Amino acid sequence: MPQYIAPTKDMQYVLNDVLDVKNSSIPGYADLDADFLSAILEEAGKITSQVLAPLNAVGDQEGCHFENGVIRTPTGFKDAFEQVKEGGWTGIDCDPEFGGQGLPYLVGTAVGEMFASSNMAFGMYQGLTHGAYSAIHAHGTEAQKQTYLPNMVSCDWTGTMNLTEPHCGTDLGLMRTKAEPQGDGTFKITGQKIFISAGDHDLSENVIHLVLAKIPGGPDGVKGISLFIVPKFMVNEDGSLGARNAVAVGKIEEKMGIHGNATCVMNYDGATGFLLGDEHKGMRAMFTMMNEARLGVGLQGYSQAEVAYQNAVAYAKDRLQGRDVTGVKNPDGPADPLIVHPDIRRNLLDQKSFVEGARAFTFWGASLIDQAHREGDADANGLISLLTPVVKGFLTDKGYEYASAAQQVYGGHGYIEEWGMSQFARDARITMIYEGANGVQALDLVGRKLAQDGGKHVMAFFEMVKNFASENKGWDEDFDRDFLDPLKAASKDLQAAGMYFMQNGMKNPNNALAGSYDYMHMFGHVCLGLMWARMGKASIEALKNGADDAAFHETKIKTGRYYMARQLPATALHLARIQSGADTVMGLSEDQF
Amino acid sequence: MPQYIAPTKDMQYVLNDVLDVKNSSIPGYADLDADFLSAILEEAGKITSQVLAPLNAVGDQEGCHFENGVIRTPTGFKDAFEQVKEGGWTGIDCDPEFGGQGLPYLVGTAVGEMFASSNMAFGMYQGLTHGAYSAIHAHGTEAQKQTYLPNMVSCDWTGTMNLTEPHCGTDLGLMRTKAEPQGDGTFKITGQKIFISAGDHDLSENVIHLVLAKIPGGPDGVKGISLFIVPKFMVNEDGSLGARNAVAVGKIEEKMGIHGNATCVMNYDGATGFLLGDEHKGMRAMFTMMNEARLGVGLQGYSQAEVAYQNAVAYAKDRLQGRDVTGVKNPDGPADPLIVHPDIRRNLLDQKSFVEGARAFTFWGASLIDQAHREGDADANGLISLLTPVVKGFLTDKGYEYASAAQQVYGGHGYIEEWGMSQFARDARITMIYEGANGVQALDLVGRKLAQDGGKHVMAFFEMVKNFASENKGWDEDFDRDFLDPLKAASKDLQAAGMYFMQNGMKNPNNALAGSYDYMHMFGHVCLGLMWARMGKASIEALKNGADDAAFHETKIKTGRYYMARQLPATALHLARIQSGADTVMGLSEDQF
Repeated sequence: MPQYIAPTKDMQYVLNDVLDVKNSSIPGYADLDADFLSAILEEAGKITSQVLAPLNAVGDQEGCHFENGVIRTPTGFKDAFEQVKEGGWTGIDCDPEFGGQGLPYLVGTAVGEMFASSNMAFGMYQGLTHGAYSAIHAHGTEAQKQTYLPNMVSCDWTGTMNLTEPHCGTDLGLMRTKAEPQGDGTFKITGQKIFISAGDHDLSENVIHLVLAKIPGGPDGVKGISLFIVPKFMVNEDGSLGARNAVAVGKIEEKMGIHGNATCVMNYDGATGFLLGDEHKGMRAMFTMMNEARLGVGLQGYSQAEVAYQNAVAYAKDRLQGRDVTGVKNPDGPADPLIVHPDIRRNLLDQKSFVEGARAFTFWGASLIDQAHREGDADANGLISLLTPVVKGFLTDKGYEYASAAQQVYGGHGYIEEWGMSQFARDARITMIYEGANGVQALDLVGRKLAQDGGKHVMAFFEMVKNFASENKGWDEDFDRDFLDPLKAASKDLQAAGMYFMQNGMKNPNNALAGSYDYMHMFGHVCLGLMWARMGKASIEALKNGADDAAFHETKIKTGRYYMARQLPATALHLARIQSGADTVMGLSEDQF
Repeated sequence: MPQYIAPTKDMQYVLNDVLDVKNSSIPGYADLDADFLSAILEEAGKITSQVLAPLNAVGDQEGCHFENGVIRTPTGFKDAFEQVKEGGWTGIDCDPEFGGQGLPYLVGTAVGEMFASSNMAFGMYQGLTHGAYSAIHAHGTEAQKQTYLPNMVSCDWTGTMNLTEPHCGTDLGLMRTKAEPQGDGTFKITGQKIFISAGDHDLSENVIHLVLAKIPGGPDGVKGISLFIVPKFMVNEDGSLGARNAVAVGKIEEKMGIHGNATCVMNYDGATGFLLGDEHKGMRAMFTMMNEARLGVGLQGYSQAEVAYQNAVAYAKDRLQGRDVTGVKNPDGPADPLIVHPDIRRNLLDQKSFVEGARAFTFWGASLIDQAHREGDADANGLISLLTPVVKGFLTDKGYEYASAAQQVYGGHGYIEEWGMSQFARDARITMIYEGANGVQALDLVGRKLAQDGGKHVMAFFEMVKNFASENKGWDEDFDRDFLDPLKAASKDLQAAGMYFMQNGMKNPNNALAGSYDYMHMFGHVCLGLMWARMGKASIEALKNGADDAAFHETKIKTGRYYMARQLPATALHLARIQSGADTVMGLSEDQF
């Protein structure tokens, strides 16, 4: 069975050595001294590796069961959920007014990675609750907040997000679920929602559904969508639970993965709903949480590559097969371990250099969200809005790719469910789809975010890369060659792609859209390149300053050099594709496919 | 539920317009006139699309069951197997002396693609039998051939290949299964074999296992391995079935996919075996079938992308979501179909241009096998030996990638098993692993095949590309620009990579091996580029000659232009990685992973 060891050391490195959180001006960051962070991360590491990871395969094999109107989660989930609640993990970055610990979102993100790596299906019961919490916290009335939030912060009540319907996912303007005003301030919600993660289950006393629906007579399309709170059990004035609301599970879906999470069809049959935020402003309310939600999915993507990598490394060191062509390494054994073989190392380094770069990128993104929310910094908000589709799209595509690459190290055993490597890939697969399929992320990036605020944020990004390069040029010859030069080349490719879009997208927007997916990947590579340059600098400096853990920093530098040499050059391929334009993409008529 | 439509028109195009089989000098090819081929392919299309495809999801959902020592295949498999046998499909390219139809391997390959696309798990019962047939046909005594082959050609008896053991897959030198001579010409086989596809089941009267084992006292390692025939039921002198042999199923594996095929642990407990070929020459006997077996797996890889693509296109035309940014295309509907969106087209064209290129490449490879076997052409044999790891490694990696890409078109529905898209990806995943994991294919290509016969075959390949380019230069301006120029650039990259290996592999073989995987992919792109150039030429010519089906040829040219513009430039990225050498790959010590 696979193991999970929480990568707390690497997390602390990103937080302390790279992001230097202690010296940040973001409110709350000054409290994040190294010992405090270490204590939190080690505790999270314990519960995730010891309690949640052993339940991961159980959840996959058992799945959830829907019988007599009740959903039963896999064996052990309920007990583990109680332990997670008791540990206070569910409200780590929530508002203290409602029982949260008020820590930065960044800390919640680091902890969240461990929850996702150890048991993604389990972590989603909390994750969805957190999303619903954020929506009510941002848009709820004082009474709504007091009614729902304390029990959601503690996860005594969990939450869900209800957007998709059978005939509409991306295009929510087609939505049919309706919300009829009852004259008493409440609405009757009628319709069917599908793909509702954690839609119902036996882990909590109540489920608070957030539901998008149309109030009859409102504007057409997405401008007529409102957001509603629809509790499974009505909440009495005194906070106790009342009658069952008219919302029921239709069925649970059989999925490729995340079997431990109950993905439900939810039927609303005149259920009582309470408007959250303003009428017809439901989409805007959802959008305010979008950056966090999508960053969370990007994190899920690389979290599966992380745990899959850990197990692939262990297998590669253990499994004896073949001999090192440059000389026997294990003369007393019948063969050398897999890890002597160059192509096995190539594969493992693809994974390792991705995961560590992705972690730094995601943590940086989380700090931008803190900066935006806690400091009210509009530039930080603009920058993370730009980067959000990149985090989501690039990290989930690559997370799946590398979870599969880790599976490959196991040879035939990788295909056998008993060994657990298939589950990481199957679980990771959903991250490319939900919370906006990755093609939609690419569209959001190129069609919307690039031009936002007059292109200000993308220019700020390039300025940041340029400044980093000029500030650090000549400081160390190896650093120049191994890190800065590749970063500058990749950034130049990315700028050339943007230039191509500007020059050709005007006359035909398809010239931009046909290159959107490549642009998203290109941008991802430049971001990971920037992260690796920052990590390369931090570690070279640490070594120059005689750091204790020299081996850690040497490994970091070597891994970074690998990324810069072997992965970052992908930007040139993406640029070539983009510059080939839309002709070859749009040339076929429908019936020629 | 997904549908499968046999792509018989495209197959005929490759056979007639591209390979021009009718005018080939290969024995048997002259009989392949267009009407005959059309009749065979249409018949195969019928049984695969109407009988096997509807059972594909059944096989996935039910799987195989092992109860009371008997394996039960999924509902409908037995009936379908009888229909396949009655249709004569199992021996289509087998020796007429043993009841086969004696058609070229190329024809068997075209038919095989349909079997694999429609139901890969089902097709493997035949496929493994064919592999065992080939081994006995090539290495058996006359008596062995007479005893086993007629019933295997008809699939009344099926076959298996037993190589892997729990502790050894790639490195068969570590094998422990032993074969003790009994003094009467027979051997007692004792040991455990795992991952035995079609290991046992209820489709046939007998199962003929081919088992690799070591005769005690023989040479160490792979030089001491012999090949044995071990029937499940002994065969009496009169051909009737006798006693049960001492071979039994230990268990069947729970796998990520191909659930309809029984993957068995086989326990040999002093089973009676008959030496096939010479003592200690078992590996060589296996190797004579390697090219066919690996080409068959490459075919399975792209076959899943083919059927997944078909369904993705259908969904993209049907599902209404969003509007074309350049103008509404479906004004009477609530939204436009997905296929109007540039990124959906980009995705579909990645799939389409790969699958059609892969089909041409595989069929060409099959014709080289015919040329080698039927004409005894050593150059053809050398060339297909060189290309075999490319067919296997590249087409299965990409087959899986594009089966997953097709799944993505479905959005959330792609993740739900009911829609069937997950199965194509899960089934395709095994093709990257079995019959030599793709990393081993890359090692075989760079470590062995490149230098074979003094590098003669790779030089012949480049000569072929060069000749094609020079013969067709200036013939058509668009063809030069859209097809020949990109092919020449890609071929130049591939040559540069080989040059890098020569110059740097001598001083350190890791400089070659660290680039082996990239080289395999690069080679794959050049092969598909060559195929597209040949198809581009055939279709431009057909249009110039006023072909009836102009739309078909126009589509072909457009699809080819897409591949050349958007996929072939990948060679430059692979070259950049290769030229970065082994330093970044080998730099980490074991404990730094």
